[in-house]
Amino acid sequence: MPANSQPPDFQPLRAFPDAREIEIVDQTRLPRERITLRMRSVSEVAHAIAAMQVRGAPLIGATAAYGLALALSADATDESLKTASDLLLATRPTAVNLRWALERVRHRVASLPPPLRADAAWDEADAIAAEDIRTNRAIGDHGVRLIESIVRLVGRPVEIMTHCNAGALATLGWGTATSLIYLAHDSGIPLHVWVSETRPRLQGAKLTAWELRERGVPHTLIVDAASASLMYRHRVDLVLVGADRVAANGDLCNKIGTYEKALAAHANGVPIYAAVPSTTIDWSLSDGEGIPIEERDASEVLCSDGVIPIAPEDTRVFNPGFDITPAHLLTGLITERGVCAATSDALAAMFPDRSQ
Amino acid sequence: MPANSQPPDFQPLRAFPDAREIEIVDQTRLPRERITLRMRSVSEVAHAIAAMQVRGAPLIGATAAYGLALALSADATDESLKTASDLLLATRPTAVNLRWALERVRHRVASLPPPLRADAAWDEADAIAAEDIRTNRAIGDHGVRLIESIVRLVGRPVEIMTHCNAGALATLGWGTATSLIYLAHDSGIPLHVWVSETRPRLQGAKLTAWELRERGVPHTLIVDAASASLMYRHRVDLVLVGADRVAANGDLCNKIGTYEKALAAHANGVPIYAAVPSTTIDWSLSDGEGIPIEERDASEVLCSDGVIPIAPEDTRVFNPGFDITPAHLLTGLITERGVCAATSDALAAMFPDRSQ
Repeated sequence: MPANSQPPDFQPLRAFPDAREIEIVDQTRLPRERITLRMRSVSEVAHAIAAMQVRGAPLIGATAAYGLALALSADATDESLKTASDLLLATRPTAVNLRWALERVRHRVASLPPPLRADAAWDEADAIAAEDIRTNRAIGDHGVRLIESIVRLVGRPVEIMTHCNAGALATLGWGTATSLIYLAHDSGIPLHVWVSETRPRLQGAKLTAWELRERGVPHTLIVDAASASLMYRHRVDLVLVGADRVAANGDLCNKIGTYEKALAAHANGVPIYAAVPSTTIDWSLSDGEGIPIEERDASEVLCSDGVIPIAPEDTRVFNPGFDITPAHLLTGLITERGVCAATSDALAAMFPDRSQ
Repeated sequence: MPANSQPPDFQPLRAFPDAREIEIVDQTRLPRERITLRMRSVSEVAHAIAAMQVRGAPLIGATAAYGLALALSADATDESLKTASDLLLATRPTAVNLRWALERVRHRVASLPPPLRADAAWDEADAIAAEDIRTNRAIGDHGVRLIESIVRLVGRPVEIMTHCNAGALATLGWGTATSLIYLAHDSGIPLHVWVSETRPRLQGAKLTAWELRERGVPHTLIVDAASASLMYRHRVDLVLVGADRVAANGDLCNKIGTYEKALAAHANGVPIYAAVPSTTIDWSLSDGEGIPIEERDASEVLCSDGVIPIAPEDTRVFNPGFDITPAHLLTGLITERGVCAATSDALAAMFPDRSQ
């Protein structure tokens, strides 16, 4: 394993605590242009999350933490803390990292006198960001062994399928699913990635393909509906996805289409793993039934690329952002502590300190 | 059953034998505009099929038959017959109706002296078109009983999912999958159709949603990747798809994404039927392995709506137009002779005259 590997240099979030500013990459503009936005207020941050300029469960969490720090820099009262926290929490209902990060900052600052709160919040947000990089690297270090074991078996480039963007652009560092891909690639394991475009917002095509290209990883773009067929045709060795929320029993909530990939992987004997930082696990939910599924605007589906409607303009649309994959369809979960089965027992055994 | 139902009036192909012309609806322009094109030469027809101005297995077959009639109207020699037939056959490799229709016209005219060939070819093409309308209506008459039995069970509107366009725009008359939907709707059965958009060319969004709207059938558009999730959430009672080619054992070749729907239907106990005119059955293939899968141009995926690339422009793309659904995943086939299991025995019993 390449200990000297560095995370990708296209970091989607940078913090400037002294200037009380953060800078994000506007991910709605990629791959056409790489535009960064500086933000000084919590309302700007909330808008950036809701509009998906910033997306990906781990990155949403860290960005929200900085958002709270920005709010407290302007007004450190209890009321400001509550208002800012509520505003940020309402931006995206599905990813649990958002709630987790906000609670962590609130817990850190709530008992402090207001004049000390802003610095503490910046410090806590920095800590969340730094931990995210370490977590993703650890996921990669554990997960890369799966890829190593496959290349030994198949004796040719490993064919990996991914969905949406569980990449560096969804995190502070390595990405979750991409972390093992980048580490395997860096260590010379030949591999090729099938990138499913991920309608309606096309994060696979726009973000994952862009990331893999920047990092020099061979890849091919497909429409989402071609995923199962590739597995049926024995052209996929491993499916790697991310997670927006995982229930305590391993049920996986992730980008819409993940469940279809899991069904196809299960039916065709292809291993499928979700890369899951423990911040994504919702220990309060015994299974996936209770996870709220965000329904997004019809325009995302109707106006492919934002302008020209693909169907009659008054066509009714149902646009759920996520789906639930029952744990039994998953081969396993890759966490920062190691690879485990997607079961209550295995998760509790791996995280005895968190699962109570 | 509404005996007085009429097929939709947006017929995608009209023939004018006296004028030696045909007129097609340019389906690449729907739903934005309804443009008809007049054609007098086989090369125009071949282009229209290859460019998918005309698409849908039954419609491709009938259009190719008229294309051969146009060729023989210009030059009725053996050489012209062969050249035109080869040109048309090369346009789309997957749908078997194309080959079947061309062979039928060739068989009709080959033994005739050249001066009689053109009229005979027009006559045979007319017969193919007329039979297609009768076939699709018969598929509807048989299939509507499935919808009737479901509405009795569920006591609320029947939730039907379809994929791509197996509609009136894919045939001369009623459509295949839509035939039973239109007949059920006309007879007052409450129903609602989930239309999966069908990337990359979006025939679901552009054609099926347009058709259903014209006919007044309630429907909702989804991205392809949301199909399985809807089944998991018990929001689908029946999946209806078309067919581009069916092997003698019932293996189904249809638009890319059909296999994913079949996996999801099977996993969630949702019945799934393919509407299959017998012209779509390839009796020469014992199973689906031998069906050629057309690979189409990268630009269809990369340039969502033809202009702006969704990924870096040099991104490699794999764009298969179809997939194979193994017969065991299908609940059954709806043919013009009735509903049968997707098995060699059931198909042979229903078509003893064809299956030798």
